[in-house]
Amino acid sequence: MTSESIRVTGVTITPVAFADPPLLNSVGVHEPFALRAVIEVVTDAGLTGLGETYADEQHLAALRAAATAAIGVDVYHTGEIYRRVQAIAAPKTTISAGLIGDSAATDRVFSPFEVACLDIQGKAAGRPVADLLGGAVRDTVPFSGYLFYKWAAHPGAVADSWGAALDPDGIVAQAKRMVDEHGFTALKLKGGVFPPEQEIEAVRALRAQFPDHPLRLDPNAAWTPATSLRVARELDGVLEYLEDPTPGISGMAEVAREAPMPLATNMCVVAFAHLAPGIRENAVQVILSDHHYWGGLRRSALLAGICETFGIGLSMHSNSHLGISLAAMVQLAAAVPNLSYACDTHWPWKSEGEDVVAGTPFRFHGGGLTVPRGPGLGVSLDADALGRLHEQFLMCGQRNRDDTGYMRRVVPGYERRQPRW
Amino acid sequence: MTSESIRVTGVTITPVAFADPPLLNSVGVHEPFALRAVIEVVTDAGLTGLGETYADEQHLAALRAAATAAIGVDVYHTGEIYRRVQAIAAPKTTISAGLIGDSAATDRVFSPFEVACLDIQGKAAGRPVADLLGGAVRDTVPFSGYLFYKWAAHPGAVADSWGAALDPDGIVAQAKRMVDEHGFTALKLKGGVFPPEQEIEAVRALRAQFPDHPLRLDPNAAWTPATSLRVARELDGVLEYLEDPTPGISGMAEVAREAPMPLATNMCVVAFAHLAPGIRENAVQVILSDHHYWGGLRRSALLAGICETFGIGLSMHSNSHLGISLAAMVQLAAAVPNLSYACDTHWPWKSEGEDVVAGTPFRFHGGGLTVPRGPGLGVSLDADALGRLHEQFLMCGQRNRDDTGYMRRVVPGYERRQPRW
Repeated sequence: MTSESIRVTGVTITPVAFADPPLLNSVGVHEPFALRAVIEVVTDAGLTGLGETYADEQHLAALRAAATAAIGVDVYHTGEIYRRVQAIAAPKTTISAGLIGDSAATDRVFSPFEVACLDIQGKAAGRPVADLLGGAVRDTVPFSGYLFYKWAAHPGAVADSWGAALDPDGIVAQAKRMVDEHGFTALKLKGGVFPPEQEIEAVRALRAQFPDHPLRLDPNAAWTPATSLRVARELDGVLEYLEDPTPGISGMAEVAREAPMPLATNMCVVAFAHLAPGIRENAVQVILSDHHYWGGLRRSALLAGICETFGIGLSMHSNSHLGISLAAMVQLAAAVPNLSYACDTHWPWKSEGEDVVAGTPFRFHGGGLTVPRGPGLGVSLDADALGRLHEQFLMCGQRNRDDTGYMRRVVPGYERRQPRW
Repeated sequence: MTSESIRVTGVTITPVAFADPPLLNSVGVHEPFALRAVIEVVTDAGLTGLGETYADEQHLAALRAAATAAIGVDVYHTGEIYRRVQAIAAPKTTISAGLIGDSAATDRVFSPFEVACLDIQGKAAGRPVADLLGGAVRDTVPFSGYLFYKWAAHPGAVADSWGAALDPDGIVAQAKRMVDEHGFTALKLKGGVFPPEQEIEAVRALRAQFPDHPLRLDPNAAWTPATSLRVARELDGVLEYLEDPTPGISGMAEVAREAPMPLATNMCVVAFAHLAPGIRENAVQVILSDHHYWGGLRRSALLAGICETFGIGLSMHSNSHLGISLAAMVQLAAAVPNLSYACDTHWPWKSEGEDVVAGTPFRFHGGGLTVPRGPGLGVSLDADALGRLHEQFLMCGQRNRDDTGYMRRVVPGYERRQPRW
């Protein structure tokens, strides 16, 4: 008895751009548009699958090469697609603005193809993708409210509805709106923007306003180990975890030895090759997984299993993203038993209605998202919307994420420094 | 759009016994029958799935409890079945004759249910189980010829066709037949039976006869670290790996620090809880996976990913088994990219035709097995054969594997000792 094949006959890669507010971080500020690539995998069975990933030029070129390599492979044979991507993937390269460390090129390029193949497998089986990963162990996936220091507007534009957030009061107001609108039960502040004392003050203001919300602070490696330890001690009992206070595995290990709370990372352990040294040095106690650079959903599940095996906590990282990525994140998070912390998402920062997926499949209730029950990822493409966001990509002029360059155009002489304090 | 469910409506657990030759090891000798349990999972969709596992009394009781707990769960929701098994599984217990260390009760009890659920998922999708694990990355799975010191016959019985193998000549003759009949391109000798010097001599005799076959020696923890190192040095350049020369992670680590070849294990690292200490001490360089105690096929794939991540070689362990287990081993081995060594199997020691699966789905060619291409595991139950082997179980009187007790009945005063030399 031979099984019917479902072979890849074509792949469409569409770069898109969507409006992004001026969110500040340790290396600069978000540009007016966030860039993403939408991957559509077409098969000889008539079924199609979706993936979403970065859209920087070098990455787009690698995606195109991978798309050619994937032609003819059965969508169940993701191991074979991985092997083919491995054979052509460029050696290790950094992603975009480099807030993430050097992740593995193969895993980063393979990821959207794997997600699309799982989307198709799910459709073929009439099952949500979570079922292909052992099934959902939770009905609702918890997310945290992701707070940013921000300007009121991009230079030359009118203020957005969020307005400025440049001090503790601004952050608390932002958090109130986040919690009011989406019900988040955990809060994360993107720090590394102002001197640590000001950010400590902001965290204390959040604690005063939200006495029961777990709080996190992520300065994106803006601090030396000594500064990191000083902040860690000042926020003892206040932070659920401190994320990437300082650069590198050794620096993190130095902080971890004395910090009173767990350290989390999506910067120093971002590839399977980093796990052995990271674990040997006990550098991090929580890893923020991200299927976009950990090689898709099955390899993210592998990361989860490694975290469980070595007693490391598991959370989930986010870049600015659209609905395909959110669907994949939710399917994965639903199926991973040891997801021990609410996931990050930039979703609330996206303009209402600006997306490539049809309808409004995601509404937060109590800070959580219900796992879609339909087959595959549970989202479908809105062809018109895809066209509009692609047009926006063509018009916006941005081609590579460059938070630092954008900041320099606004603040001449701005220097990228990790650590800064 | 809601997906159609495939829910477990019943589980049949049938203990069976099949003839086993008097194979010697470091704790005794195989009894006249090997015991296994056959698991049939029945669903409301009419699809059924198969699993195979140990049949010792304590394990059978745990299987029955797990079967009750699994009723009503969708076969895609193996994570939920795992959670239910975890909730009822007895605390850590040893398996059978204890050649394997303390593996995790949940993983051991869950395993045949997971395999059966994947069998059903594969049938529902019209796909081999390997496709549910990312697809086969090899068409043929390599196995090693598994050599044993043995008596010519069980006490009181007529000699079996293999006859005695109690010295280097007997082992070489056995190897020749193994290689002639099945084409094995790697050979493993089960040692720990005679003083190390005799077993070194047997390995040298194999090397003389088979200059190009990778060779392995597995004394099942029969030696002290000092003896292990002495043997390791004497067999430098001869062994592909030395398996479990001495008991425990610390002992293995002591040997590994100076042994010239990799050390392998299916005794000291046999559960996820052993990985962190095993890796920290660099105690083993090769892990023999075994889905029967590592929690099924997906968790064995997780083990494989951990091995790849930490630079540990991967091989596959075997107990005496029937065709359902062999099918599961082949499906898993086909899909695991980093299976770096030929797998073990006791298959050639089983009487031709004595099995619970229909037909003869497995024939070795060049020591390898072709991955079945049909849906699910690729094997089906022969109800008459199952009945016969169950009858044999009822009649044989054996209820728990006891190699040591059986040896004592033949050789009064035989002592179980690890290490012995």
